[in-house]
Amino acid sequence: MGVTIKDIAIKLNISKAAVSKALNDKEDISIELKDKVKKTAKEMGYSPNYFAKKLATKKSNTLGVFILGKENLKGEEYYGYKFLDGIIETAVSYAYDILVFSENKNKSYTEIIREKMVEGVIFIGVDSEDKKINSVKDLLLPISIIDFHLKGENISFLSSDSYKGVKSVIDYLTELGHEKIGIIIGGEAEISKRRYFAYKKILESKNLFHKKYVYEGDFTKKSGYEIGKRLFRKKDRPTAIFSVSDLMAIGFIEGVKANGMKIPEDISVVGFDNIGFGYYSNPSLTTVDQNPLEIGQMAVKYIMDVIENKNVNNEILIEPKLIKRKSCKKIK
Amino acid sequence: MGVTIKDIAIKLNISKAAVSKALNDKEDISIELKDKVKKTAKEMGYSPNYFAKKLATKKSNTLGVFILGKENLKGEEYYGYKFLDGIIETAVSYAYDILVFSENKNKSYTEIIREKMVEGVIFIGVDSEDKKINSVKDLLLPISIIDFHLKGENISFLSSDSYKGVKSVIDYLTELGHEKIGIIIGGEAEISKRRYFAYKKILESKNLFHKKYVYEGDFTKKSGYEIGKRLFRKKDRPTAIFSVSDLMAIGFIEGVKANGMKIPEDISVVGFDNIGFGYYSNPSLTTVDQNPLEIGQMAVKYIMDVIENKNVNNEILIEPKLIKRKSCKKIK
Repeated sequence: MGVTIKDIAIKLNISKAAVSKALNDKEDISIELKDKVKKTAKEMGYSPNYFAKKLATKKSNTLGVFILGKENLKGEEYYGYKFLDGIIETAVSYAYDILVFSENKNKSYTEIIREKMVEGVIFIGVDSEDKKINSVKDLLLPISIIDFHLKGENISFLSSDSYKGVKSVIDYLTELGHEKIGIIIGGEAEISKRRYFAYKKILESKNLFHKKYVYEGDFTKKSGYEIGKRLFRKKDRPTAIFSVSDLMAIGFIEGVKANGMKIPEDISVVGFDNIGFGYYSNPSLTTVDQNPLEIGQMAVKYIMDVIENKNVNNEILIEPKLIKRKSCKKIK
Repeated sequence: MGVTIKDIAIKLNISKAAVSKALNDKEDISIELKDKVKKTAKEMGYSPNYFAKKLATKKSNTLGVFILGKENLKGEEYYGYKFLDGIIETAVSYAYDILVFSENKNKSYTEIIREKMVEGVIFIGVDSEDKKINSVKDLLLPISIIDFHLKGENISFLSSDSYKGVKSVIDYLTELGHEKIGIIIGGEAEISKRRYFAYKKILESKNLFHKKYVYEGDFTKKSGYEIGKRLFRKKDRPTAIFSVSDLMAIGFIEGVKANGMKIPEDISVVGFDNIGFGYYSNPSLTTVDQNPLEIGQMAVKYIMDVIENKNVNNEILIEPKLIKRKSCKKIK
């Protein structure tokens, strides 16, 4: 497997021990010889045996990333990959490698993690019904879990901060002069509830909350469409709508347009999630980006902080970003 | 790092050598003792040292995947991740691990690959102007490159088969009774040309090719929109349009609708690529899926075939799949 210490020793006509000392920066060897060995090693294309080095240092310098929840998508984009960019980039900055795993019917998470000797693990896309995840508590490794709560030592919960995301929406709409701000919620889903509570709290503090502007969808595009279509008939309409998901917002826009009304001229619309297609919708959709890049970065940083014995916070909420596009209009 | 062979030996009051023999299925040890050792090892949560094992077998059992070309996206979905599912799934079936890398300004591809001792490499998203890629030829490792040609021993080119993809579109449209089939091309871009040549050849063989039904866009949604809008005025219109990209198809649909015409009632539309948002467009877009899952699977299989000294083909064209949605209508 490429150039060895022996090859360098033969080339320079010195002992293997001397080569090894030079390459490992030991002190009982002259600086001249050290430089000479290093130069020759470089010229010959030598690189230290990766696994031997890991074994010697008893560190794998590797993190494992479980990419889960891809089974139930029907043609939809897999959101979880958006975290990978921040994960890889940050791991590289710590000189760590990333091993990726997906569902494996034959092996438990714990078996995979033990076998690969990773120093930390990140979970993406854990299903809310997943019972297997509990066993990872026994590993005593630093673990970052995105959008899923698991209590345990050195286990962190990472998510975007719903409250701040919703606040950025309301602040933007009120700046544009909107006071009648409606919401499309998504039934009993956890994230819908969190976003609705933030909406209610913020509007109440401004005396702008009205139950009649709350519309109930079910996270499908069709439910947004129906709400948009019916809205036409209502006399007292909101001037802006915040949908707790982009998909319902897109459906809503189509429903409104089906009645000959225009976006944003007749009503402003804001979504949540920044799923790719909002970029291409007509008009393009103003939305809240969960900031998956930073979530990925922080997932790695948490693990590194634990490894380096730094103080850590097990609940990491990332500030989302409002992405202003063309679906909102200034009315005052 | 967890339970060792020594721990098992102490527990069973036998030698470390005996434990090792049992765990490595050597023959000079009784079956009873072998079973006892294995059972105890399992109970104690023993797993063989990953890196020690790799070092001993002189195989890293690891493939590297370079995920490139994410820099120039502006809010668009990164297509390259679609290949990862097939890559991970297939690697697992061969008991290989996947290390992922992205752009690294400080290190060349070759340095990263040598350092990590991967047995094969997959490149996703190589830029057509990338000069650095040439150096990987010297590695003499099996390499799979998706959608980018690089000549060299044990280097494969993987891509979806444009001709078969276009043929599936034309066959489908002619089955629905369409004879006036137009095309929206994307200027001088390589993939546009490939798809246009296939379209021309297939229609010519059926005596259905007419230069007047060829419309020139530039891969933007806006260019598709303009073509859709102008189409209204033409007396001799095609009854179906094939766009060489989904994005231009979506723009085209909006342009057609802006004139009060309906899809698919007034004209059928087919895209190419199966980028996520076609699933959500109105109507949902019939398109050609490049079959990234299979491309990812074959990228790993090629490397494994080289490692196992099997005969390999360095050009691997995957058959794309027509995804029938709601943008086409039977007219005869």
